[in-house]
Amino acid sequence: MPGNKGVVYEGAGKVEVHAIDYPEFELKDGPGVNPANVGRKVPHGAIVKAIATNICGSDQHMVRGRTTAPQGLVLGHEITGEVAEVGPDVEFVKVGDMVSVPFNISCGRCRNCKEGKTGICENVNPDRPGSAYGYVDMGGWVGGQAEYVLVPYADWNLLKFPDRDQAMEKILDLAMLADIFPTGFHGCVTAGVGPGSTVYVAGAGPVGLAAAASAFLLGAAVVIVGDLNKERLAQAHGFGCETADVSQGEPREHIERILGVPEVDCAVDAVGFEARGHGREAGTEHPATVLNTIMDVTRAGGAVGIPGLYVTGDPGAKDEAARQGSLSIRIGLGWAKSLSFTTGQCPVMRYNRQLMMAILHDRVRIAEAVNATPIPLDQAPRGYAEFDKGAARKYVLDPHGMLATAA
Amino acid sequence: MPGNKGVVYEGAGKVEVHAIDYPEFELKDGPGVNPANVGRKVPHGAIVKAIATNICGSDQHMVRGRTTAPQGLVLGHEITGEVAEVGPDVEFVKVGDMVSVPFNISCGRCRNCKEGKTGICENVNPDRPGSAYGYVDMGGWVGGQAEYVLVPYADWNLLKFPDRDQAMEKILDLAMLADIFPTGFHGCVTAGVGPGSTVYVAGAGPVGLAAAASAFLLGAAVVIVGDLNKERLAQAHGFGCETADVSQGEPREHIERILGVPEVDCAVDAVGFEARGHGREAGTEHPATVLNTIMDVTRAGGAVGIPGLYVTGDPGAKDEAARQGSLSIRIGLGWAKSLSFTTGQCPVMRYNRQLMMAILHDRVRIAEAVNATPIPLDQAPRGYAEFDKGAARKYVLDPHGMLATAA
Amino acid sequence: MPGNKGVVYEGAGKVEVHAIDYPEFELKDGPGVNPANVGRKVPHGAIVKAIATNICGSDQHMVRGRTTAPQGLVLGHEITGEVAEVGPDVEFVKVGDMVSVPFNISCGRCRNCKEGKTGICENVNPDRPGSAYGYVDMGGWVGGQAEYVLVPYADWNLLKFPDRDQAMEKILDLAMLADIFPTGFHGCVTAGVGPGSTVYVAGAGPVGLAAAASAFLLGAAVVIVGDLNKERLAQAHGFGCETADVSQGEPREHIERILGVPEVDCAVDAVGFEARGHGREAGTEHPATVLNTIMDVTRAGGAVGIPGLYVTGDPGAKDEAARQGSLSIRIGLGWAKSLSFTTGQCPVMRYNRQLMMAILHDRVRIAEAVNATPIPLDQAPRGYAEFDKGAARKYVLDPHGMLATAA
Amino acid sequence: MPGNKGVVYEGAGKVEVHAIDYPEFELKDGPGVNPANVGRKVPHGAIVKAIATNICGSDQHMVRGRTTAPQGLVLGHEITGEVAEVGPDVEFVKVGDMVSVPFNISCGRCRNCKEGKTGICENVNPDRPGSAYGYVDMGGWVGGQAEYVLVPYADWNLLKFPDRDQAMEKILDLAMLADIFPTGFHGCVTAGVGPGSTVYVAGAGPVGLAAAASAFLLGAAVVIVGDLNKERLAQAHGFGCETADVSQGEPREHIERILGVPEVDCAVDAVGFEARGHGREAGTEHPATVLNTIMDVTRAGGAVGIPGLYVTGDPGAKDEAARQGSLSIRIGLGWAKSLSFTTGQCPVMRYNRQLMMAILHDRVRIAEAVNATPIPLDQAPRGYAEFDKGAARKYVLDPHGMLATAA
Repeated sequence: MPGNKGVVYEGAGKVEVHAIDYPEFELKDGPGVNPANVGRKVPHGAIVKAIATNICGSDQHMVRGRTTAPQGLVLGHEITGEVAEVGPDVEFVKVGDMVSVPFNISCGRCRNCKEGKTGICENVNPDRPGSAYGYVDMGGWVGGQAEYVLVPYADWNLLKFPDRDQAMEKILDLAMLADIFPTGFHGCVTAGVGPGSTVYVAGAGPVGLAAAASAFLLGAAVVIVGDLNKERLAQAHGFGCETADVSQGEPREHIERILGVPEVDCAVDAVGFEARGHGREAGTEHPATVLNTIMDVTRAGGAVGIPGLYVTGDPGAKDEAARQGSLSIRIGLGWAKSLSFTTGQCPVMRYNRQLMMAILHDRVRIAEAVNATPIPLDQAPRGYAEFDKGAARKYVLDPHGMLATAA
Repeated sequence: MPGNKGVVYEGAGKVEVHAIDYPEFELKDGPGVNPANVGRKVPHGAIVKAIATNICGSDQHMVRGRTTAPQGLVLGHEITGEVAEVGPDVEFVKVGDMVSVPFNISCGRCRNCKEGKTGICENVNPDRPGSAYGYVDMGGWVGGQAEYVLVPYADWNLLKFPDRDQAMEKILDLAMLADIFPTGFHGCVTAGVGPGSTVYVAGAGPVGLAAAASAFLLGAAVVIVGDLNKERLAQAHGFGCETADVSQGEPREHIERILGVPEVDCAVDAVGFEARGHGREAGTEHPATVLNTIMDVTRAGGAVGIPGLYVTGDPGAKDEAARQGSLSIRIGLGWAKSLSFTTGQCPVMRYNRQLMMAILHDRVRIAEAVNATPIPLDQAPRGYAEFDKGAARKYVLDPHGMLATAA
Repeated sequence: MPGNKGVVYEGAGKVEVHAIDYPEFELKDGPGVNPANVGRKVPHGAIVKAIATNICGSDQHMVRGRTTAPQGLVLGHEITGEVAEVGPDVEFVKVGDMVSVPFNISCGRCRNCKEGKTGICENVNPDRPGSAYGYVDMGGWVGGQAEYVLVPYADWNLLKFPDRDQAMEKILDLAMLADIFPTGFHGCVTAGVGPGSTVYVAGAGPVGLAAAASAFLLGAAVVIVGDLNKERLAQAHGFGCETADVSQGEPREHIERILGVPEVDCAVDAVGFEARGHGREAGTEHPATVLNTIMDVTRAGGAVGIPGLYVTGDPGAKDEAARQGSLSIRIGLGWAKSLSFTTGQCPVMRYNRQLMMAILHDRVRIAEAVNATPIPLDQAPRGYAEFDKGAARKYVLDPHGMLATAA
Repeated sequence: MPGNKGVVYEGAGKVEVHAIDYPEFELKDGPGVNPANVGRKVPHGAIVKAIATNICGSDQHMVRGRTTAPQGLVLGHEITGEVAEVGPDVEFVKVGDMVSVPFNISCGRCRNCKEGKTGICENVNPDRPGSAYGYVDMGGWVGGQAEYVLVPYADWNLLKFPDRDQAMEKILDLAMLADIFPTGFHGCVTAGVGPGSTVYVAGAGPVGLAAAASAFLLGAAVVIVGDLNKERLAQAHGFGCETADVSQGEPREHIERILGVPEVDCAVDAVGFEARGHGREAGTEHPATVLNTIMDVTRAGGAVGIPGLYVTGDPGAKDEAARQGSLSIRIGLGWAKSLSFTTGQCPVMRYNRQLMMAILHDRVRIAEAVNATPIPLDQAPRGYAEFDKGAARKYVLDPHGMLATAA
């Protein structure tokens, strides 16, 4: 049995890389494991050797100490790799398969999974529908910013790449299939983006950039990305987006200058509850800023996709309502415009095969769009720190040095 | 030229019936008419003799003084009748046709109309997309709680009934096609109601009852209606709904008792911003109560239809945020459940022909469900007053005594 | 280990009931088992004690000798029952659960299953996508007109009823969930049936009647059923359908008499390739009759659902083209009307839970609509014979005498 | 009043350009005008000065003498231009507007138009739903391969370009909005093309090339175009398509070589009833060849879009069935694969605004894809002749010399 090493949350502002247990086909007790999941047998699982495993903005919520994540939690839910072992009940996945792991863990047997709603599987998290690897209050499945990770229900969850060499050639692109590419894409789909659409994407972090790239893949005519961070805006501009620097104020004027009208067809919230204000309020958090802005800039009859995370509890919020996940939203404005809103985790499995095809056939350059940047696993703390400061990069950890070799 | 008589808003709490101008094929100046619409030619219009013209809950918002409606505004947007005259550009509608008038006025020429979004037509209200007869800030089209009313773009807007006698036999049912039946139906459709669904409808007023009847028409397995008003709950119970008396508290427990689980598949907000609290808070307005409750009782992956009105400004609200149409919403809860939300005016034209067919072929008894109650036009003030007190009735004005005769 | 007894195809026109092997968690060799499936391990399977197991019209294709079904094939794919044993990999289904078995066998792991297309699962039939129990050229899964049957991928395939007693009370209705109720429903859904639709259903056999009942559940205004068999038409008339006796000629005139126009919004082909002609041609097979008729009677812009079976090879057909599954179709007529067509096996899992809810909450009486008629397993040959002669009944075999007790 | 000149069908194989009547706001009698349309008032019409007016493959059906088109018929239904006059009922379109004219004429008032099904408008063709300019049996609206053409229901039908100069810069691209770009796009949409799809397009004529370009715009991973004509295949290859030379036989093998599997996700029939056979049968017409081939190469669960024209009567067909529009189709194969099929005229209005946006913002180069080739109006006979011989060009007539100037 090989050893294992992973990225571990050690308290607010602190992550470390150290030895962790090598996975077995059972969910053992440990930090953050739901008691009802302790000892759960996973004969249907596969152990995946992580070739690429990304740092995600939603990991930052935990690392900043904005959640109740326990010390010792192994992080990481954006995993791409090679199947190292399969459990006795696995029938179709084989050792050696190159695979993408959807960040949402799902069983493939419950009502929601049968309806394709794998982001809210009923059987993997004892507390509520929906789960993810290495995430607080999600059932306790061990994170995958590690050399090896256990993937339950492997026949259902894993997406196989057709060819090993081809996969290694595009591994940084394929690494985005685990989360941010489908997540950004879902934001666009639920916002109604299609050929000819005009689109506003709030946020030029990795999910926002993935949403922008997705919008182009869906045929959007114009994609306008708003952010406070000039470096990230430059990144968006680099692949054809228009940009709106919201540190200068609301994006309505920018949009009018670009489109001739102050509204877009579709809007995507790729920021979520840790939003800061626009214009003069850019220095402080205003968790409903993005929601209210996108209602303002979306045309009547449009739709809004909300992949950005909103939480049921935010201990660090400024006011009592926000601490309960309740925000002051201009619902009257949205109603007057007949807007529709779609929230929640992206059901990755609904999109990942198709997006893999788009990558393999050169229809999209997602790694370039998000500025995917491989770094060794041991340098994860640096990656977290730089990302937290607003680097216009998507950090991809390289536990086995295979990304370095591939590049 | 015949005379005309209509229901006129005369200030907070006061409506009167008196003589008004007989319509011409031009929008004349008058109370509430948008200056940019004054003098607008309407050669494409028809003058409809109103046979049935209903009092709507949204009229109450004005009559209670919760809006900026000007004195002298002729009310009424739920009109059913006979074509008395047609303008020179009308090609397909004929004098004598029996018709339903969608409450949303639309042009049939703009982008939104071409997309079937007639609730947000771009060409009829100079201020913003969307219009309605006899409604504050909606362009100034004269209301139809009157003997005669002008319907613009008649070839586009009017739904013709196939046969006059058949129409008069079911006139109270057909009268619900102008607004509340499609509106309740739209709430259900956008909430994803289909065969076998479990549905929670918040509000047992006419729109809520219409939503409940619509849910059954769509094949719902169980429909649970919540309200504070026992008489209205009894009305819902009368046609097969389960009920939840929310004066006793949140409906979660009721739902669990009925279904075995505390959540439904689909929820409809048929109340809107004038909601009162649940349980102990039933005595005061809590404009976000219904939105927050339906997020609570809708299962993960479900959908929420919001036909209930939310406004961009509410001068009478308790706090400054609500006065701007901004409410404290548990968006984090909705997000965790991957809910989707659809707001806005129902685009009546998308549904009215189909619902007419369901009425004419005895698949639904909507007049009975909402307790349609004809009263003479002159008694409109009484209708308004009783409805405001919570009568479990849908008042239908009878300007020409034809409902009395039909019954 | 208990014994087992099943309905066996013994050659054209001949079925017998005799002892068969009790299932194991492995697919053994036997009549009709695909060599590539022989010895396949089924640790994910459940053995279901069949409480109700129906004779299907598609079984008749085999029994009439119209296929290459081998002697000794155990028939039956419409199975409802109780879980008697579960394999070692089964996690959520429990012994004693009352369940419906979708007739299409699917794995819950392939691309098509993930997309909800369980009628064309890629992993259960080595020859092509799609499988069913007890059916020629479908992989060789043993049929369930038997006391016991093996259901693979039980956690995925089985639909659990919430309560045993409630299930036994409605067992004849629930027995229709395995095939014909979802199949008829799918025909309607793909034909675009919704509230207010006018619908033509070709065929008043069990699937046609199930389609008609489904149309009502979906809110259809008028349902017109066409057939050559007066007894079956009477059955349709009994639950509110209009009827068209096509032995008198094409249904166009009937439809015009009923609706005032000669076309419907939606049409369902519940007959398939063994169609006989209309009018004077009623005495002989005309395999494209139904397809061509429904194109004739569907309005421009309508849709056509085709749950009726068309085969890739029909050794008994009159002409060479039909023997290859090629029929002379008036595609030009369909094109001029912009019709769309949906073919194929119903993916039962897409609908069965919802339809179960509709049954359990008394929104549909499907057993009554199809005239479900329980008979002892031993009388299966009589059931086949009577059904073949056109009895207006749906025969439900009762292997354990539990239907007799329940009734 | 200016003069007018147009392309006139003068009998099988013969078109001429000569003087025709300048349009009035009334449909006058003339060759091919439906008697019930003679004298129809068109106060809602606009007279459009044709800047670009294309020759269409469907015009060839008439010119080859395959229809009952009368001598003297003015041809042309792909019109782009400038509004020269508006009728008295026109409210929103203005003289001088630059516009695209959807080839399907629709009223904007009937049930089908309200549902967005403008290809089967009920009010413009007295014989059946659906109409087009300059086309046999379509009501008699005068064709637009002319200097000026009358467009009825102008406020509804015309798509306005935002800016004149911008429009003239991209006029050859915008000229494709009248028919073939939306038509090819509709083929893709109804075939289910989306990001990552693999697509087979049968036919590399202008509609096939437009379908291929549309597939890329929709995000397709791989687009394979099949044709017998090497020059047209080269044109497809020029913008990134894979190709299959079906003069060498069925495309199944080509597809397998390209994709690794012999089937695609989606297929588009851009040929229609004048198909020739594949392989050895390439020399003769086999009207069902394309339909049967695309069923063969589409994967189970896929969809087939059929924008290619199939006719209700084809006097020149080889056999009696085909003369009635009845073809021998392998429906059994399609059924076994659960395929769905969508036929009919593209409802241009559903797509043209969005595709205009994609053109104006440089997301698609449709003129280049179809090799748009402007020629003077007077050279229309040459254009027809070369196109008929298989030139890999889309001929765009230039009645006012404005294309020559623009280029």
